Amino acid sequence: MKNCIFCKIIKGEIPSIKVWEDAETYAFMDINPTRPGHMLIIPKKHVDYIFETEEPLFTKLFVNAKKLSKALKSSTGALKIGLAIEGIAVRHVHLHLIPVNNVNDLDPCKSKKGNIEELKQMAEKIRKELKD
Amino acid sequence: MKNCIFCKIIKGEIPSIKVWEDAETYAFMDINPTRPGHMLIIPKKHVDYIFETEEPLFTKLFVNAKKLSKALKSSTGALKIGLAIEGIAVRHVHLHLIPVNNVNDLDPCKSKKGNIEELKQMAEKIRKELKD
Repeated sequence: MKNCIFCKIIKGEIPSIKVWEDAETYAFMDINPTRPGHMLIIPKKHVDYIFETEEPLFTKLFVNAKKLSKALKSSTGALKIGLAIEGIAVRHVHLHLIPVNNVNDLDPCKSKKGNIEELKQMAEKIRKELKD
Repeated sequence: MKNCIFCKIIKGEIPSIKVWEDAETYAFMDINPTRPGHMLIIPKKHVDYIFETEEPLFTKLFVNAKKLSKALKSSTGALKIGLAIEGIAVRHVHLHLIPVNNVNDLDPCKSKKGNIEELKQMAEKIRKELKD
């Protein structure tokens, strides 16, 4: 969709630090992470609202999040990977995958600008875990 | 599991304001809502971590969340229903379904003790939408 930042990322018109992709979904580092390792998985097709996303894409997003969560957990050493979908800031469905160790680690107020080099290194670390 | 508050809710040993259930999952009002209408959906079986939940239960939780989100959206008039899974406070998988209108409406810091009568009325309102 025109003027959608995530559609532009999919098209490569805006750069992103990619972690993984398949035919329908794309995963990349959040540039304003709440916690180190915070990443996003989005559908390549523009869909506005997670609960209006049709099958099989709806289920695929969560199944792919599960796949990515394993690599993210082992590469960050987090206790668990949390999941958040707020759907307001950017009107293109995006699943936040956030390494959590404490109750409030999903708190969106903790979000702050990340260091690009550190984000690239983290993405590389996660990709390696995905290959194993 | 012994001493798990959500297992006790499933068994009826601790009261809850039920919205809906099926054979594998149970949905009820969060007694410390972040936003009016905030509810939880949990598996009846004790599972500690969402991304270690096996199929078909893993997918079923999200599909049921989608079903409930429609009733929750129409009964609250929210712009969207957000989804959050932090997995730390209670070690029994629980999906937070939260009506959202603004970017930070998933913020766990907004959680505060709800009024039981108001929660019961909200549950009734959501149940009515589920029947239609």
